[in-house]
Amino acid sequence: MDKLLVVKIGGNIIDDEEKLSPFLKEFARLFGSGAASSGAKAILVHGGGKLATKLGETLGVEQKLVDGRRITDAETLKIVTMVYAGLINKNIVAQLQSYGCNAIGLSGADGNAVLAHKRIAHNSPLGVEGYGFAGDVDEVNASFLHTLLSAGNTVVLAPITHNGKGQLLNTNADTIAQETAKAMAAHYDVSLIYSFEKAGVLLDVNDDSSVIRELTPAYYEQLKPSSSGEGGRIFAGMIPKLDNAFAALNSGVKKVIIGKAEELEQLVEGKSGTTIING
Amino acid sequence: MDKLLVVKIGGNIIDDEEKLSPFLKEFARLFGSGAASSGAKAILVHGGGKLATKLGETLGVEQKLVDGRRITDAETLKIVTMVYAGLINKNIVAQLQSYGCNAIGLSGADGNAVLAHKRIAHNSPLGVEGYGFAGDVDEVNASFLHTLLSAGNTVVLAPITHNGKGQLLNTNADTIAQETAKAMAAHYDVSLIYSFEKAGVLLDVNDDSSVIRELTPAYYEQLKPSSSGEGGRIFAGMIPKLDNAFAALNSGVKKVIIGKAEELEQLVEGKSGTTIING
Repeated sequence: MDKLLVVKIGGNIIDDEEKLSPFLKEFARLFGSGAASSGAKAILVHGGGKLATKLGETLGVEQKLVDGRRITDAETLKIVTMVYAGLINKNIVAQLQSYGCNAIGLSGADGNAVLAHKRIAHNSPLGVEGYGFAGDVDEVNASFLHTLLSAGNTVVLAPITHNGKGQLLNTNADTIAQETAKAMAAHYDVSLIYSFEKAGVLLDVNDDSSVIRELTPAYYEQLKPSSSGEGGRIFAGMIPKLDNAFAALNSGVKKVIIGKAEELEQLVEGKSGTTIING
Repeated sequence: MDKLLVVKIGGNIIDDEEKLSPFLKEFARLFGSGAASSGAKAILVHGGGKLATKLGETLGVEQKLVDGRRITDAETLKIVTMVYAGLINKNIVAQLQSYGCNAIGLSGADGNAVLAHKRIAHNSPLGVEGYGFAGDVDEVNASFLHTLLSAGNTVVLAPITHNGKGQLLNTNADTIAQETAKAMAAHYDVSLIYSFEKAGVLLDVNDDSSVIRELTPAYYEQLKPSSSGEGGRIFAGMIPKLDNAFAALNSGVKKVIIGKAEELEQLVEGKSGTTIING
């Protein structure tokens, strides 16, 4: 099977043009049509960064929280659709094109790429409407993405999905990356890369040199907090990402790599960051 | 050759959800996968309407004019990219999907669909920077669009293009529709439809019943203003559209039809609006 890299790029890189441009240049070098290409196919999944929050503030749209989670009301959905699927997605695509990578940017509605449903908030004081227009992924249209990749395109996914009934939904980019990697495992030898500002999964969150090079289920059991939430040597914010990573491995993804966006080639080659494998 | 309809939908329809939804439902019925489908392929090109202007006002971005033409400065480019390629494009796509039409929304950067260059303002007091980030179309990537259409997708084009060097550009939707129709004439039997709020090309701009049913070059010569701009029975605002229509016919497009968005099926069948043909 051909190799496919599903690469999630984090919000802090998106917000910083001085970091984003070199990242995209390197991405295009590795996955574009140039002589230095790795030959692997790629899907880039981007988050939103702080641009949408800033635009919301300028427009006077208040950010709402329920149970500590951000709520996507109708006005916020318009803003994230404009910023994620419009401004950020099209600027990334135009830059990749300029670096010789034939990118195509998609929301989940385009070609029915990512179907989702409105998240139900079981225990929220606001009832089932609790999270507003937040979407949980039902299905990634692997055959459509496969068609685009086979035609020589690199796919750039924005974290906006739809429910098939005309409603756009705001969806977590990490989840889209994971579900896309799982769905594509039927067609490709898939690696899932979470690239962000940290060097990988760290034993000491303040020390970039404490990166765990390889994480197996057994080692993870030792390091993560107990079921009561106590102890653990891994930063709590990393736990959902890692639980998702192991779930992806159990669904056919070959490996999950977490590390610095600046070191994309080393991540792809497993020479940097944390590689998460099954057994 | 298979039939292809390139349909431009005007700004006044985009702005009015009560007109847009029935239009999209009818579009999906005619070009979707349902039993009532016409069997023809379709590309929908949309303009921007007043949403971008409104957002610009709310954000305090002043609209600039040079020689009576609107200037796309850097801030305005961000706004139109968000509104046209994000909000409007993705909402149209999600609605078409809900009506059984497998739409995919693109800017000109996506898959290098529409390549353009920054418009040069020869006689502007602002010099070559006069129009800012306004783009004139160089090339429509017909083989890429053909691949998508062949895979069963309906393409929805936003009026945002790129220059291949990483720069997005704001581009007139009428021009995109015309250039797309011309480029696709190598692959399909192409009809170009300009659908808007008027019944067609009118002899009396205030009388919808004065629609010209068929317009040939000879008849157009009789009706249009003289080269000095005097006289003429056709509304001046229609002249650039008609000049473009005849240019398209000279480049392989089979017919151009101008008429009411509410009468899409009749337009497609040539039973409504003005049909413009060569000879």
